[in-house]
Amino acid sequence: MMKYTENYGSAPLSRDTVAAIMWAGPVMLSPAAQVNEAIERVRQAGLPQPGMNSCYVVAEDGVLLGALSLRDLLLNGGGIQVGTIMTRPFVTVQPEDDQELAAQLMDEFDLLELPVVDSGNRLQGVVTADDAMSVLTEEATEDMEVMNAITPSERPYLETPAVRLFLSRIPWLLLLMLSAAFTGGIIAHFEDALAAQAALTAFIPMLMDTGGNCGSQSSVTVIRGLSLGQIRFGDWLKVVWKELRIGFLCALTLAAVNLFRLQLCGTPLDVAAVVSLALGVTVMIAKLIGCTLPVAAKKLGFDPAVMASPFITTLVDGVSLLAYFRLAVRLLEM
Amino acid sequence: MMKYTENYGSAPLSRDTVAAIMWAGPVMLSPAAQVNEAIERVRQAGLPQPGMNSCYVVAEDGVLLGALSLRDLLLNGGGIQVGTIMTRPFVTVQPEDDQELAAQLMDEFDLLELPVVDSGNRLQGVVTADDAMSVLTEEATEDMEVMNAITPSERPYLETPAVRLFLSRIPWLLLLMLSAAFTGGIIAHFEDALAAQAALTAFIPMLMDTGGNCGSQSSVTVIRGLSLGQIRFGDWLKVVWKELRIGFLCALTLAAVNLFRLQLCGTPLDVAAVVSLALGVTVMIAKLIGCTLPVAAKKLGFDPAVMASPFITTLVDGVSLLAYFRLAVRLLEM
Repeated sequence: MMKYTENYGSAPLSRDTVAAIMWAGPVMLSPAAQVNEAIERVRQAGLPQPGMNSCYVVAEDGVLLGALSLRDLLLNGGGIQVGTIMTRPFVTVQPEDDQELAAQLMDEFDLLELPVVDSGNRLQGVVTADDAMSVLTEEATEDMEVMNAITPSERPYLETPAVRLFLSRIPWLLLLMLSAAFTGGIIAHFEDALAAQAALTAFIPMLMDTGGNCGSQSSVTVIRGLSLGQIRFGDWLKVVWKELRIGFLCALTLAAVNLFRLQLCGTPLDVAAVVSLALGVTVMIAKLIGCTLPVAAKKLGFDPAVMASPFITTLVDGVSLLAYFRLAVRLLEM
Repeated sequence: MMKYTENYGSAPLSRDTVAAIMWAGPVMLSPAAQVNEAIERVRQAGLPQPGMNSCYVVAEDGVLLGALSLRDLLLNGGGIQVGTIMTRPFVTVQPEDDQELAAQLMDEFDLLELPVVDSGNRLQGVVTADDAMSVLTEEATEDMEVMNAITPSERPYLETPAVRLFLSRIPWLLLLMLSAAFTGGIIAHFEDALAAQAALTAFIPMLMDTGGNCGSQSSVTVIRGLSLGQIRFGDWLKVVWKELRIGFLCALTLAAVNLFRLQLCGTPLDVAAVVSLALGVTVMIAKLIGCTLPVAAKKLGFDPAVMASPFITTLVDGVSLLAYFRLAVRLLEM
């Protein structure tokens, strides 16, 4: 039996525990019980919940030994001991684990029921697939909200008052607005350069947007991978190396297309070159920031989903404008 | 029996049908069969798949009449006719329906199995909860990818070659980069005004970022609501009215905080007023665009998830800069 409590996606923002969704009172059998007795026990005791289709085999001290579905009971002869036909559960969770962990394990291993045990492996309850589905849906919604600068809420949109929705959005907007002021500060710092080359201003939106988009692509990929347990902290070097290569290909393509377009539009070659170079640098930086911050957040115990589009965009904006103006000042000899 | 084929979230990008995940060959019983016979049938035939825990009651022509879990069989006496204890299935899907629809229904109604019928209501197969969980997870991942300008792929990140990941990202980046060039055109158009008031440039990132964030908040909320079936097309007026109120509150708060901050920084009052006013207008427009485009996309048969952060941001950028410069030219008498 394995216990999964580490290395799996468990977002600190969603500390809803397994205890809150597990069903207590599963039918427990001793390994020596015969199938006929087991069926009789199920008939007498019922099963605590429609979603439950298994009985559990436990030792005298309550330690979980295995599971039997009603299917197993029906398909086997009446005199067989349940201990000989039970399935040994290869994954279990504990009541204080995150619900998301339980749901992910059930998804990954195609389980309809997941036994919950205490630290001594004694059976405490069972999580059923119908509840796991709700958890998966809620957690995905929560991640999407956090990734778009919204404090998650479990209430459906149409039933939530406008003021509540406002309150779940405004703190993030304020924080990000004030952060963007720093980016503005960078522009103000290069005001003289901009005054000398007013045309440079027109490329700011393209640089900012492309940087933001490149960064969000990387961050959402890594955030989702972390959340599904497909990426672990130990993979960070592999992730960075992969994003560097993707970033290089993107930078090359975007810079080339941009240079070509600017030449078509009659932009002077030196300006076009500076803009394209700045674009390439921005793309590389954006991919790097986009893939490292979620992994770092995870390691530090924050919800990686916070490190998505809005946050990454704000950060990348500043870095890319800085690169842009520095390159312009240096290469255009302003 | 209801059939859900309309009004529910079925993203055109994910036309994976129910047929691909349904299990054929469920145990079918006539309504007159007794529980004992049913148990015998299950013993003989087995059940086609471990995730399946029900038998189905059908008429002679194969029309689905009801379902019985193994639990129902065990809990009832041997001589009872299954037709009298079966549950009438209140939701069914058809083989050509979207997998996502099946998974959403199972999630919403807490079902462990969902019967699949043809247009004549004849039982064709069964979708089980373990497969539905995988569908829910995949669809959420797909939505997140589309919402961040990535062509979805079902392969885990670490196993996908860098070139493939590059190809799934670059078309969107190119498209969005060229769109952002139009925004640059707006700035170029107002170059004289900017030359006269160079300080105005420094507020561009703050306006663009805040507009983008406001728009993504609205769009992701609506996209997820549409995808979960919590928002239908018929709700669009309610959605717009709600977003207008939220937008008004956000605009007021952000503009006020911004005005206060600029006053603290010693920005001339007229410039601060123009920036704050433009910010308020931007926020309102962003919220409106953010909530209407996904609903419109859905109505037109596109995947609403495309109308998320990157696309909305690019659009809002243009509109907000236009508003900003027009206000500046008018109010600062440039």
